[in-house]
Amino acid sequence: MKLKKKDRQEQLTQMIEETPFITDEELANKFGVSIQTIRLDRLELSIPELRERIKNVANKNWNETVRALPIDEVIGEVVNLELDNLAISILDIHEEHVFSRNQIARGHHLFAQANSLAVAVINDELALTANAEISFTRPVKLGERVVAKASVVGNDQKRTIIEVKSFVNNEIVFEGKFYMYRNTDK
Amino acid sequence: MKLKKKDRQEQLTQMIEETPFITDEELANKFGVSIQTIRLDRLELSIPELRERIKNVANKNWNETVRALPIDEVIGEVVNLELDNLAISILDIHEEHVFSRNQIARGHHLFAQANSLAVAVINDELALTANAEISFTRPVKLGERVVAKASVVGNDQKRTIIEVKSFVNNEIVFEGKFYMYRNTDK
Repeated sequence: MKLKKKDRQEQLTQMIEETPFITDEELANKFGVSIQTIRLDRLELSIPELRERIKNVANKNWNETVRALPIDEVIGEVVNLELDNLAISILDIHEEHVFSRNQIARGHHLFAQANSLAVAVINDELALTANAEISFTRPVKLGERVVAKASVVGNDQKRTIIEVKSFVNNEIVFEGKFYMYRNTDK
Repeated sequence: MKLKKKDRQEQLTQMIEETPFITDEELANKFGVSIQTIRLDRLELSIPELRERIKNVANKNWNETVRALPIDEVIGEVVNLELDNLAISILDIHEEHVFSRNQIARGHHLFAQANSLAVAVINDELALTANAEISFTRPVKLGERVVAKASVVGNDQKRTIIEVKSFVNNEIVFEGKFYMYRNTDK
């Protein structure tokens, strides 16, 4: 049963507050309405689109500077960074990222996004990848937007362990554990 | 003690036959002579330079066609291919592959070479990476030449397991185990 507009808009506002990375498409599915309806709801409620929401969420914490590499060498757009803790980036999958034959994103681009984010999150002048264990959990298609989240999960003497999870909408598409050498001991 | 020229050239010929991927620099170190001397030896003995030698070794077996992707989508130059068995590619590390700060090759380029070779070796229309475990065993510098060798080491129902080892000279710089989905069961 469809909700009344007022109820839908109330629930929609709450849902976006709780899960700010939810897409219009997912919202449309949840409420059984068209994407266009969701867009109109957002307009009426003055809720910005996903990309802006990610940036807004991110900007609150985005008060640090990448140290281990110049920011323009990060693959994807960094939208959040807390050094030695957490980083988030967005990569839109364009023609140059996909296999020509099936329009599926090539693994090394997802890897590059994740790996460069793992470098960026490190609060050190030098960070090099030693090892990684990675999984591609579902194919990513042309036109999709990949949000990668890197979290520092541990340190041993000279290595920092970073988990990266990448999502399309709220679905996980890539997971990696990166063991990074850094310049200074922890 | 330095060898006489005749002895050196005999040993050099034998050494190149046994390890065709050895570089002039390594030969110079082994014989305690300059790289220029090795080049002159090769000229006199009509032994081609490394790149040509790799291609020659490779061309003997290079009678198959990449199936899982167009050849120009392989990162690096494929110099040998035996489908479902073995593939070799060369990647020269240029400015665009390195961190600006320290001239070390970025991990995702070594990954891209290895991963696309793992796709290329598969004798199937479709090959997608499911998982990988990778190690970067020593930093690769600007100007170095990376030779990657992909070997099919096993199959389970829907996955093919491929080991890729990448070398600079005869030193291993990258190792990866790739678990690939393919279209057809093995």
